[in-house]
Amino acid sequence: MPELRRDPIIGRWVIIAKERGKRPSDFVIEEEKTKDGFCPLCPGGEHTTPPEVLAYGRPGYAPNTPGWTLRVVPNKFPALVIEGDLDKQGEGIYDIMNGIGAHEVIIETPRHGETIPQMTQDQVKLIFLAYRDRIVDLARDIRFRYIIIFKNFGRAAGASLEHSHSQLIALPIVPQLIQEEITSSLRYFEYKERCVFCDVIHQELSDGSRVVCENKDFVTIAPFAPRAPFEMWLLPKKHRSSYVSMDDWLFGSLAGIFLETMRRLNKALPRVPYNYMLHTSPLRDQTMEYYHWHIEIMPKLTMVAGFEWGTGFYINPTPPEESAKFLREIDMGIQ
Amino acid sequence: MPELRRDPIIGRWVIIAKERGKRPSDFVIEEEKTKDGFCPLCPGGEHTTPPEVLAYGRPGYAPNTPGWTLRVVPNKFPALVIEGDLDKQGEGIYDIMNGIGAHEVIIETPRHGETIPQMTQDQVKLIFLAYRDRIVDLARDIRFRYIIIFKNFGRAAGASLEHSHSQLIALPIVPQLIQEEITSSLRYFEYKERCVFCDVIHQELSDGSRVVCENKDFVTIAPFAPRAPFEMWLLPKKHRSSYVSMDDWLFGSLAGIFLETMRRLNKALPRVPYNYMLHTSPLRDQTMEYYHWHIEIMPKLTMVAGFEWGTGFYINPTPPEESAKFLREIDMGIQ
Repeated sequence: MPELRRDPIIGRWVIIAKERGKRPSDFVIEEEKTKDGFCPLCPGGEHTTPPEVLAYGRPGYAPNTPGWTLRVVPNKFPALVIEGDLDKQGEGIYDIMNGIGAHEVIIETPRHGETIPQMTQDQVKLIFLAYRDRIVDLARDIRFRYIIIFKNFGRAAGASLEHSHSQLIALPIVPQLIQEEITSSLRYFEYKERCVFCDVIHQELSDGSRVVCENKDFVTIAPFAPRAPFEMWLLPKKHRSSYVSMDDWLFGSLAGIFLETMRRLNKALPRVPYNYMLHTSPLRDQTMEYYHWHIEIMPKLTMVAGFEWGTGFYINPTPPEESAKFLREIDMGIQ
Repeated sequence: MPELRRDPIIGRWVIIAKERGKRPSDFVIEEEKTKDGFCPLCPGGEHTTPPEVLAYGRPGYAPNTPGWTLRVVPNKFPALVIEGDLDKQGEGIYDIMNGIGAHEVIIETPRHGETIPQMTQDQVKLIFLAYRDRIVDLARDIRFRYIIIFKNFGRAAGASLEHSHSQLIALPIVPQLIQEEITSSLRYFEYKERCVFCDVIHQELSDGSRVVCENKDFVTIAPFAPRAPFEMWLLPKKHRSSYVSMDDWLFGSLAGIFLETMRRLNKALPRVPYNYMLHTSPLRDQTMEYYHWHIEIMPKLTMVAGFEWGTGFYINPTPPEESAKFLREIDMGIQ
């Protein structure tokens, strides 16, 4: 079973995924690509993945056969495992926890090679609905405290399979970075009695220089202090801490702005590798006046090197005002 | 002038290095290599770098000419600049500071292509002495609060020049990660009245399973909760919070263990890209009962992707007991 271990000095948890147990000789440049053209995420490869936990758009088809438009399966090589007890223990000054969790793969499209900017708004809406449906389902498991959903696109951003997919990891703890966002937002709220994200949105909309695009419900900005060039945050304009509590009718609007954001990025930097992460409130604290769900989008243009590892500080060569202006002024023409 | 900007939500500072101002078209795969074989860090290239601020081993030679065995110069493309006032200001809810700092390059050897495992112990000792001498010199500038020294080796770890070098950045703030180490160590000290690093060393030496190598003054361990495969920490066995307060006679011993550590790593994973970072106490708090200087060594074998960006949590496929055993049992033969 994988282990969660906490660093006693900085309080940072790591997952030691023993089952993936890599010795030095295993660290070759992996060409995990599709063996002789076979992709386990394509229709027809259903038998090579664990059985699906969710599928959309399969009227009259049997589970785990082709016909779906979106499919969610457990990860075949999970970082955390679903069976077992939490079981915390000490080892001298150290803390260990069993690596209990869920690790799922959201197969975003049946069409191999299709990327997000090429998808229809309806397809993207399905992705966001799948995120919600899986969070709602997994939240029933009382062992889980937090669910992070993220996407790695492109090999340089960590994707080992080409077929468009995102991932979900359910965790038995609230991760440090989310906890820091929450603690810091709460401190702001105690002082101002306002949500710091709402204040950021207000300032960005009235200033305008860091706005990439917006619709009536959502806005995408280049954040004031971006870690990387062309980093973007997508936020709902109205305060809401929990992604899953979003009203149904908003998912189409979310798909619309997200698609516009990703198309702008792709026009500026064609096929740039990227990561995005959905940040929402912890499972047991759905409604928070001081926290605000959002999506963080990080194009992979610079490297995390010694300075960043040593300080938690980032050097970014592109001011967000410039990246926002560039993305905002992209001619979107006819899609 | 570069800007320091603070994220209002998480409190994370970033350096917006406008002068490096990159537009989308600038993000091509950089082959910064040596143009027609010319290396600005080699002897003979002294006129292409800013004038040196330190050089060792040049009896009777004029500054900025060949003959040195180690040389320190300001970075030609600094992330922070040395001239100017600190000047903090707000912009609505945001915090900005002028990007005042120092950014220097420690040219570790005159021999192009020589890597640390190939150096003599005397040469490595010079590197560690240079770190100390530069920190002592820059600490006199009251605008600086922290100095981080780090090395990027190999393109995948962020090195843009092949010639062996490390970097120094003097900062007007204590970076978040260091502050977290200090705050967390202080909390431990308040509870136990002991340094958490000293307790880690004590436990590791008596357990032994995560020890890579040691001598009478220093120990290298694979930390209990490593962020990446083959991560190592090198620590002085006796409590000391500040690197610069280390006694002169210890530098040879430090060079010895460091060289052994890097040679073991290089035998396990030949020419693996890596980063290392020197963590020492902030400039204005040299003596701390609860903090302990150390070097963190991070081989570059995995990628920071969506999960790590989203959570500050790491998935590591190699247990530290395995990596330490592997490194410990390397046959070092005759060097």
